[in-house]
Amino acid sequence: MAQADIALIGLAVMGQNLILNMNDHGFVVCAFNRTVSKVDDFLANEAKGTKVVGAHSLEEMVAKLKKPRRVILLVKAGQAVDDFIGKLRRCRDLKAKGILFVGSGVSGGEEGARYGPSLMPGGDKEAWPHIKTIFQGIAAKVGTGEPCCDWVGDEGAGHFVKMVHNGIEYGDMQLICEAYQLMKDVLAMEHDEMAKVFEEWNKTELDSFLIEITANILKFRDSDGRHLLPKIRDSAGQKGTGKWTAISALEYGVPVTLIGEAVFARCLSSLKDERIQASKKLTGPQKIQFEGDKKAFLEDIRKALYASKIISYAQGFMLLRQAAAEFGWTLNYGGIALMWRGGCIIRSVFLGKIKDAFDRNPQLQNLLLDDFFKSAVENCQGAWRRAVSTGVQAGIPMPCFTTALSFYDGYRHDVLPANLIQAQRDYFGAHTYELLAKPGQFIHTNWTGHGGSVSSSSYNA
Amino acid sequence: MAQADIALIGLAVMGQNLILNMNDHGFVVCAFNRTVSKVDDFLANEAKGTKVVGAHSLEEMVAKLKKPRRVILLVKAGQAVDDFIGKLRRCRDLKAKGILFVGSGVSGGEEGARYGPSLMPGGDKEAWPHIKTIFQGIAAKVGTGEPCCDWVGDEGAGHFVKMVHNGIEYGDMQLICEAYQLMKDVLAMEHDEMAKVFEEWNKTELDSFLIEITANILKFRDSDGRHLLPKIRDSAGQKGTGKWTAISALEYGVPVTLIGEAVFARCLSSLKDERIQASKKLTGPQKIQFEGDKKAFLEDIRKALYASKIISYAQGFMLLRQAAAEFGWTLNYGGIALMWRGGCIIRSVFLGKIKDAFDRNPQLQNLLLDDFFKSAVENCQGAWRRAVSTGVQAGIPMPCFTTALSFYDGYRHDVLPANLIQAQRDYFGAHTYELLAKPGQFIHTNWTGHGGSVSSSSYNA
Ligand SMILES: NC(=O)c1ccc[n+]([C@@H]2O[C@H](COP(=O)([O-])OP(=O)(O)OC[C@H]3O[C@@H](n4cnc5c(N)ncnc54)[C@H](OP(=O)(O)O)[C@@H]3O)[C@@H](O)[C@H]2O)c1
Ligand SMILES: NC(=O)c1ccc[n+]([C@@H]2O[C@H](COP(=O)([O-])OP(=O)(O)OC[C@H]3O[C@@H](n4cnc5c(N)ncnc54)[C@H](OP(=O)(O)O)[C@@H]3O)[C@@H](O)[C@H]2O)c1
Repeated sequence: MAQADIALIGLAVMGQNLILNMNDHGFVVCAFNRTVSKVDDFLANEAKGTKVVGAHSLEEMVAKLKKPRRVILLVKAGQAVDDFIGKLRRCRDLKAKGILFVGSGVSGGEEGARYGPSLMPGGDKEAWPHIKTIFQGIAAKVGTGEPCCDWVGDEGAGHFVKMVHNGIEYGDMQLICEAYQLMKDVLAMEHDEMAKVFEEWNKTELDSFLIEITANILKFRDSDGRHLLPKIRDSAGQKGTGKWTAISALEYGVPVTLIGEAVFARCLSSLKDERIQASKKLTGPQKIQFEGDKKAFLEDIRKALYASKIISYAQGFMLLRQAAAEFGWTLNYGGIALMWRGGCIIRSVFLGKIKDAFDRNPQLQNLLLDDFFKSAVENCQGAWRRAVSTGVQAGIPMPCFTTALSFYDGYRHDVLPANLIQAQRDYFGAHTYELLAKPGQFIHTNWTGHGGSVSSSSYNA
Repeated sequence: MAQADIALIGLAVMGQNLILNMNDHGFVVCAFNRTVSKVDDFLANEAKGTKVVGAHSLEEMVAKLKKPRRVILLVKAGQAVDDFIGKLRRCRDLKAKGILFVGSGVSGGEEGARYGPSLMPGGDKEAWPHIKTIFQGIAAKVGTGEPCCDWVGDEGAGHFVKMVHNGIEYGDMQLICEAYQLMKDVLAMEHDEMAKVFEEWNKTELDSFLIEITANILKFRDSDGRHLLPKIRDSAGQKGTGKWTAISALEYGVPVTLIGEAVFARCLSSLKDERIQASKKLTGPQKIQFEGDKKAFLEDIRKALYASKIISYAQGFMLLRQAAAEFGWTLNYGGIALMWRGGCIIRSVFLGKIKDAFDRNPQLQNLLLDDFFKSAVENCQGAWRRAVSTGVQAGIPMPCFTTALSFYDGYRHDVLPANLIQAQRDYFGAHTYELLAKPGQFIHTNWTGHGGSVSSSSYNA
């Protein structure tokens, strides 16, 4: 009997929780999984007492669906998705009706899937009316009930926006790590004390999910009564989305330096054995006890984190803008900020400020040019520079704090030393350069007095 | 009549100079170019009085070549190379004999091509005996006549090594820019004075082509008698090889942060109009006159540059090592350092030290673990930290000085704060983590007390 509003394939963390979430919102969901035994496990345990129904084959699943049949595939990214679409396509009944494909970003992890994720759907817009109620129904809500889900754009726009979200998540996490290491190694703070600081920070502009869970993690004690965090191996994994963001940034020529550094920081962390070996050989500055005003320095760290975070989001939106130009998408930047405002890993009060900035000026070219963010960074910069200098003297690695500062200082310089790069390229490779006075006109100088006058055409390639 | 030892196709800067170089070494070269008129121009001008012969068609070129026929394609990278190989393949006579394809990196620009380039050939090793005499004959020589050219390895190894060379070149150039800006903006130095400093530096460990030409560029005066450099537009171009290096680094998970930042610095420089706009809005620290010891600070900058350069090369060789592992190549790292020692843009005394390090220990895992480089960095680090702190306080962007320092400080830490990243990933996404005490065993903790116990399998993907 066709009773289910929607089917979901893939009963791992995300799938199970999303099903329970849809069930909470009154939708009847049909659950299916490649390893069919997981369907029965799920019905007998997590889904017990709900209206969730199960299927033991694709045919059974299709038979149980109301028309138009809506199917969510929530399986391992990559090959698995292609495999399943292939199978669905081969399912004659569906094929006759055509499949409207939507690629949706989903964020929020286990908790998000269960109680309200951020959903970023894009693709075939004809599908949107058929899924909008369910998607916006189960999505996270912010403010006066605004759903963290809206139509993103054509083709892969939903996935691209989700990818940039993940890249930003890498950056936010690395920024928190740098703050944590400064507290731990410069201020010699204990875990419970650091947890309190993060709790305090969560009442400031930094109010966000990641700061909140950092406080919880810092104070979490293992079954033996001791803190768990210091026992965890400092070798960070990654699934690749941060890396893809950084690669896109390089490909489209957008200086998304903070995400790049965050990805590389994970790579370096994973060279654990080599680092252990290196730590026995390479020396740093002598350890000295911090003698300044501890409370003031904590505030410096907080402001360094906040300013760096602003830079990171400014860079992320620069990348979105460039991708929109490359692919001919029309993206609603305020809408994207709202989709990330709740439900997802980077959810924060801060994203509401970004939404406001785009509401004030939908054509805003760069977040840093908005008055609110301009003032915010300027208000932080003294503290930011102090935190960085102190960390540099103490030998603390701060790849993201420092790259953000370099970006800020570079971005606000009308003149950078890149004229020297252009001169060098022309000197050794006849690559030509422009004069400040005559942009658009490419000149070659015979710097050495010898060599020919043939210039390279590749410059314009 | 078959009289030519080798043919060269592509009469732009590189091609013309390489032909003249081969002619100098006694080889008879047949010149050809898509736009055939350039052949006659070349014979009537630059090649006048030499033994160079011309061809006006591929057939004529083939007819003029001694067997086995050796052909160098030196055309615009990318599609052009494929097009020409296609045409050559279609050339029946050659096809019957088979083509042994070699992809060779070539560096040194106009001057290098003319008087001795660095050549990095890889591909079909059967071809090597047929071209070795010519390649090593025209290559740059260092020390007691050692050629900066040797067989690199299978497949694209020659091009990969050249690509990394170019990435390192981006890094070296950006490091010089950062030193230049510190001198100009913190020390308020004039161009001739800066030129003298670079000339002095060229007598130290920094002795290199790029430092030498920087001195020449700084003092170069335009026809109006004024310095040319400050008139050049600070918007750096790029052909893509630095970007490819950074993308490879991300793909293979190697933290080649300095090249990444150098590429992004060029991207930022090219946003000239946006920067001009931003410079009117965003403020930095108040300009203050430098009141320290100028000579001492110059030495701090020099050491910052030297230490950062060591980090960059350490990262570059990390990438080569990882690529060799990925592709199953056997690379001779000392040989690569020797190929770069002369002839190319990054040529320097420094590369001789790298060669020495690999001679001492061919299995050396990381340059920083070699005693010479370990001591060199340690000797610089106080100065390096001072230069960076001062620049940070003065609002000077130093993306490469700072990322190098963060890498050094990260690399020498046996424990990094990435345990927090692992805890966060497990907290919000059930991604699991390892304990320091039990590496290889992946654990999930129910951090919140609610939520399920289903973990994500993707971690191991
Ligand atoms: N975990 C998170 O925090 C998170 C956050 C946002 C988005 N996501 C995305 O959500 C999706 C699901 O993530 P997850 O962590 O819940 O689970 P997952 O570990 O990524 O995937 C496991 C699920 O995929 C199925 N599967 C794997 N290979 C398959 C194949 N070749 N054919 C059919 N099914 C296959 C598995 O079925 P079997 O049981 O038969 O093996 C299982 O149901 C992924 O695309 C992920 O990128 C995850
Ligand atoms: N310039 C440097 O500093 C430098 C340094 C190291 C390596 N390289 C490499 O050396 C090679 C040559 O560089 P370059 O700067 O001398 O010259 P280039 O400007 O990169 O290339 C111009 C040459 O390529 C030919 N060409 C372009 N498109 C073609 C096509 N579709 N079919 C056939 N020929 C085509 C041109 O012929 P027409 O005259 O008919 O247009 C001309 O001879 C490139 O691969 C470059 O990457 C250059």
